Amino acid sequence: MSRPTNDSSAYRGRYAEPLPTSNLGAMENDFPEFEPFEDEVQPRGYAPAGQALTVQQIDMCQQVNKPNHYTGAYDIENLVVRRGQEFVIRVTFSRPLADGDDFQLEFLIGSNPSVAKGSLVVVTTNSRAGGPWSGQILEMQGESVVVGVTATPDAIVGKYRTYVAIVAGGGMQRSKRDPTTDMYMLFNAWCPADAVFLPDGAERMEYVMNDIGVIFQGSADAVSQRNWMFGQFERGILDACIQILDASRMPIYNRGDVIQLIRKGSAMINSQDDNGVLVGNWSDDYSMGKPPTSWTGSVQILLQYANTGVPVCFAQCWVFAGVFNTFLRCLGIPSRVITNFSSAHDNTGNLKTDLIFKTDGTPDRRHTRDSIWNYHCWNEAFVVRPDLPPGLGGWQVVDATPQETSDGHFRCGPAPVAAIKDGLLCHPFDCGFVFAEVNSDVVFHKRDRFGTLTAYRVDKTHVGQAICTKAVGSGAAQDVKHTYKYPEGSADNERTMNRAEEYGCARDHSEVADSQLSITISCGQVGLGQDVNLAVDIQNQGDVSKTVRANLAGSVVFYTGVIASHFKDDPFSVTVPANQTERAMLTVAAQEYLPHLGTQLCLHFAVTGQADDQSLNAVKVVDLQTPGLLMQVSGTPQVQQEMVVTVSFTNPYSSPLHDVFISMEGPGLMNYRTRYFSVIEAQAAISWSETFIPRLSGHRCLVSALNCRNLHQVNGSCDVTIAEM
Amino acid sequence: MSRPTNDSSAYRGRYAEPLPTSNLGAMENDFPEFEPFEDEVQPRGYAPAGQALTVQQIDMCQQVNKPNHYTGAYDIENLVVRRGQEFVIRVTFSRPLADGDDFQLEFLIGSNPSVAKGSLVVVTTNSRAGGPWSGQILEMQGESVVVGVTATPDAIVGKYRTYVAIVAGGGMQRSKRDPTTDMYMLFNAWCPADAVFLPDGAERMEYVMNDIGVIFQGSADAVSQRNWMFGQFERGILDACIQILDASRMPIYNRGDVIQLIRKGSAMINSQDDNGVLVGNWSDDYSMGKPPTSWTGSVQILLQYANTGVPVCFAQCWVFAGVFNTFLRCLGIPSRVITNFSSAHDNTGNLKTDLIFKTDGTPDRRHTRDSIWNYHCWNEAFVVRPDLPPGLGGWQVVDATPQETSDGHFRCGPAPVAAIKDGLLCHPFDCGFVFAEVNSDVVFHKRDRFGTLTAYRVDKTHVGQAICTKAVGSGAAQDVKHTYKYPEGSADNERTMNRAEEYGCARDHSEVADSQLSITISCGQVGLGQDVNLAVDIQNQGDVSKTVRANLAGSVVFYTGVIASHFKDDPFSVTVPANQTERAMLTVAAQEYLPHLGTQLCLHFAVTGQADDQSLNAVKVVDLQTPGLLMQVSGTPQVQQEMVVTVSFTNPYSSPLHDVFISMEGPGLMNYRTRYFSVIEAQAAISWSETFIPRLSGHRCLVSALNCRNLHQVNGSCDVTIAEM
Repeated sequence: MSRPTNDSSAYRGRYAEPLPTSNLGAMENDFPEFEPFEDEVQPRGYAPAGQALTVQQIDMCQQVNKPNHYTGAYDIENLVVRRGQEFVIRVTFSRPLADGDDFQLEFLIGSNPSVAKGSLVVVTTNSRAGGPWSGQILEMQGESVVVGVTATPDAIVGKYRTYVAIVAGGGMQRSKRDPTTDMYMLFNAWCPADAVFLPDGAERMEYVMNDIGVIFQGSADAVSQRNWMFGQFERGILDACIQILDASRMPIYNRGDVIQLIRKGSAMINSQDDNGVLVGNWSDDYSMGKPPTSWTGSVQILLQYANTGVPVCFAQCWVFAGVFNTFLRCLGIPSRVITNFSSAHDNTGNLKTDLIFKTDGTPDRRHTRDSIWNYHCWNEAFVVRPDLPPGLGGWQVVDATPQETSDGHFRCGPAPVAAIKDGLLCHPFDCGFVFAEVNSDVVFHKRDRFGTLTAYRVDKTHVGQAICTKAVGSGAAQDVKHTYKYPEGSADNERTMNRAEEYGCARDHSEVADSQLSITISCGQVGLGQDVNLAVDIQNQGDVSKTVRANLAGSVVFYTGVIASHFKDDPFSVTVPANQTERAMLTVAAQEYLPHLGTQLCLHFAVTGQADDQSLNAVKVVDLQTPGLLMQVSGTPQVQQEMVVTVSFTNPYSSPLHDVFISMEGPGLMNYRTRYFSVIEAQAAISWSETFIPRLSGHRCLVSALNCRNLHQVNGSCDVTIAEM
Repeated sequence: MSRPTNDSSAYRGRYAEPLPTSNLGAMENDFPEFEPFEDEVQPRGYAPAGQALTVQQIDMCQQVNKPNHYTGAYDIENLVVRRGQEFVIRVTFSRPLADGDDFQLEFLIGSNPSVAKGSLVVVTTNSRAGGPWSGQILEMQGESVVVGVTATPDAIVGKYRTYVAIVAGGGMQRSKRDPTTDMYMLFNAWCPADAVFLPDGAERMEYVMNDIGVIFQGSADAVSQRNWMFGQFERGILDACIQILDASRMPIYNRGDVIQLIRKGSAMINSQDDNGVLVGNWSDDYSMGKPPTSWTGSVQILLQYANTGVPVCFAQCWVFAGVFNTFLRCLGIPSRVITNFSSAHDNTGNLKTDLIFKTDGTPDRRHTRDSIWNYHCWNEAFVVRPDLPPGLGGWQVVDATPQETSDGHFRCGPAPVAAIKDGLLCHPFDCGFVFAEVNSDVVFHKRDRFGTLTAYRVDKTHVGQAICTKAVGSGAAQDVKHTYKYPEGSADNERTMNRAEEYGCARDHSEVADSQLSITISCGQVGLGQDVNLAVDIQNQGDVSKTVRANLAGSVVFYTGVIASHFKDDPFSVTVPANQTERAMLTVAAQEYLPHLGTQLCLHFAVTGQADDQSLNAVKVVDLQTPGLLMQVSGTPQVQQEMVVTVSFTNPYSSPLHDVFISMEGPGLMNYRTRYFSVIEAQAAISWSETFIPRLSGHRCLVSALNCRNLHQVNGSCDVTIAEM
């Protein structure tokens, strides 16, 4: 007896008209070509033909408007403009305008456009009142009139239809529907009255205009990076982004509100709830789709979603963040990808990550529920928050990775970064959740034989060790941790923590004895297939010598910190004299970990020790380094001049690689290409060349990725600067 | 390539353990009966049989606990207690306890219970540390020990499994799983430390304990009421409420947090997004289910949902509110049903409801998008808000009726009523939406021939005219408008409006000329099938006589204000001398409206007038009165004594009624019964008697409803006071 939830007939008695939720659907019947005035008792019909004013041509003046609106990079035939800023349209009539001639421009978006809701805008150029957008005649020359139109800075964002209407005897005579005069309206980071205004020019170039990105991964003490091609200007991407909003059934009326739009976006980039763009998969079985590590950027994902309407397989956090960033920049919203190193997840909503150990000091995996991700990626969008008290505008955390516990739905934010820093968790949206991700205490519990837990160590600095984003104008990492947190131990930080606790974020207040013994583990970079050499230092700050019975546990882990397989347990014992440090050197052979590796190439070493009544432990995450793809370009680096790129790779291993896919792309240079190699023999080299013709000038980038069941995380990139034509 | 979104295998690398989301699933393997200590090198196995301490019986002491916890009314075999308050358990051992004997109680909820997350609670009665709940031995007598257990006031709410564990040689010896010792834990409005604490005893009796309700409907100037049987104590309802949480996949860990729980509830009571309880239908075609008007209470709906797992057809706002209220009270959360008369809906999120008229003064239905509901029902829950600044606890608006524009998902609240009153819209959840429902200005626009709108009248008092709920301890309406709004025109109200505007709720600032002409319409009560006599008064406050050309438009409307069918247009003209009022009497014959009636029985009359350049209008909603069902009880009104109830009805019409269903129920008295009459002839009387045996004492109520395609909104009720056994 259940009915489909979107059966609009069940709502006939609820709405005066159905709520329009589609922007890109075919809208061919906006008006009759001649619409008599309703208040005219007897419509007079057409005016005499000889004198009639009619529209001959509507020119959207792309060459003038595009550079003014910074939209020249969009690979699209139609005009793209930003709101709150004048654009021009040249209308050519059948004869020069005379006194008494009256015409108006009309811009329509979605089905059933409504003047009261801003989805039908009337622009007049005389003293007669029009819609909220302003219009003026800039130039008249013979039959041709250039009209300047300025959309309000809160105009609905999306694709508008353009009409010119002439007041003709007893009614309105309208131009025919012409899809070439359809026009895209974007958010405007250049306009001070727009909610996405970003004052700094270099930041606008980075956060709105840059279609190439860098995403940081790895761990806080060994940060790695991958290029990510946002590609927001590539062909089909702007339509794909609007299609995502249409698929979300977001009412057209709400699409001028950036806060509602980015919150909706965070829900739609993942497939949960709403058949959104990407399916999350952390299983290491990606046979039903593409492994998350194999994507080079957002373009293929968005085009696939737009073409099929079906969620794309598969993503992990950096893929969600990369695609969400494309969506935001494409619509004109300043945004960036953030990486939080040691990110606390799936808490009960409190500020504790509980790690539980057995009485012998080894991890109690059966009773430990929480995990700390080596890193987690989300996005920040730069918007004002008129819905909140002053001081909370600016960068907002939005996260499209499906979070089971964020308010029960699969979306997160916008949460003001300033609110996180000051512990102002009483404002929407999801501030408490983000606060815990960067501020949780890690509490080490010992579980006794009766099942009771006793905390024995609290680490207040492990979570949120570093928070990074790509720097403006370079590929370097910029640490933005100070925008999220006051320095550990400062009075400001204490005030923030107290305030967060007032707002219900329970902290740990376990009293733990100071320990005189501590462990640190260090390790250099390790290439995939090399042995791992760990230096374990045990410090004894006490006045008596101690013998520590210790265990080294080695596991392969996901970047989420979840253990994929446990491959080694190595007990050892160290006696540390009073006030001394002793070092134990432990070696893990490549043969020990290689059979257990999945796609993530991440090893996790935990040393747990016991001396008298004291428990101590330390962990070390080692990201295995992979060989790279070498990329080289040749030819004249100039727009519209053919160039060649060559990707080469040498199999460094003593066994062959089978079923290898290499893909590459470069926004503004080359669309997505892929090449299949059925086998790459041991130690063998391959190379692959492709030609391309640059479309955009400036600093550009090509990236490539290798996708093979036995070898993951192999990438390459090369930079090239393209001259103007 | 899309995978089901709840495919937990895709999350293997995300969670250390799957998040438990089921409370009622079969959980038969919590423990091995004997669990050796992990830190014991060689488990010693069972202690010698002769001296072994074993558990003979666990008595949940219902007769003692139920009255103390106010849970005696629940028709359920298992113990039901409230958190933050001591309950007792009597454990009978195989021999009297001796020095050195050690046992503990263990309470488990959901799969994979976790000590760190509060879903596995260890209660000790000696100095050994246990979980967060406290335990003490209250009494020892031979082999039997009475243990007092107090759950923390933030304990997880739901169904726990109870075990007694004895420390036996080298391990823990546990009692067998016994479903009769399963125990329900509820929120506790009696406990000052619980987030749902309600200090006033009479209010607790009403808002937690009363299983009978009154819901107000109609319009502000003609309030009608219907009884609604919440039935939160009826058999199967508590399990059904937990099953709703299970269906929502809400993590067990979060079910102690009342804010998360009521927000989740508001999403789950409607079927959108999540296959929740009720399918909304405002179509007037209810052939695929039961008409919203035919329900007598929540019990049938919740039992049908629990038995089938499929959403129940059909609901409108008072049904959503009635069922949500049952859910809240059943789990121990103080709650009430609120009716807002003239409720603004589906705005763009601003404070304007735009009604558009043509140049001749008649309504422009094609361009009017907004509507004002005659009334709308939602719920309030009484909870503290530790997540917000002080002053915002107390009653919170929660609304389960699916609202298309509330943050993009089908749920609403909790929004603090105090925040609505003070315009503090910067706090979660959905305050702006509720604020608009009670505060929107109604703006009357004239649409000119070019499509441009000009506002000509703003009514700031129409929306939220009255906000009512059932009074404590009686069936009367209590106006709670003052908790939502300061008086119109007061400085406080102006401050609230300004603050709301600062937080982005755009107000209307149209400048409209003062009008010297105004219209009011009045009308007495009208029975279904009677003629409607309307008195139209036109006031002229000007110094010159005016002739008004007017039109009376008659429509049948849904309670949402949406027009179902327009049946009459009656132009008339009135000349009003200076500073006078003239009355026109207009009669609408029953034959004019009867053919157009649907289920809602609501007529809408609009008078629009034009005098020189002035437009004026007024509307009047007339709810047609229906005949009632007469109910009479006989017998001894005492618990466990058989009684008889007789429902009688006389068809007052001159045509027969076909396919008539009459249903009745009475919480604590009688379960749901229904009777079919294939025909009730014109003017004929029917009667139907049923026997019942009261289960609960006190003031009780029986209600009945008639369901027929040709006649809706026919109800009856009778009160009876049942003595103790």
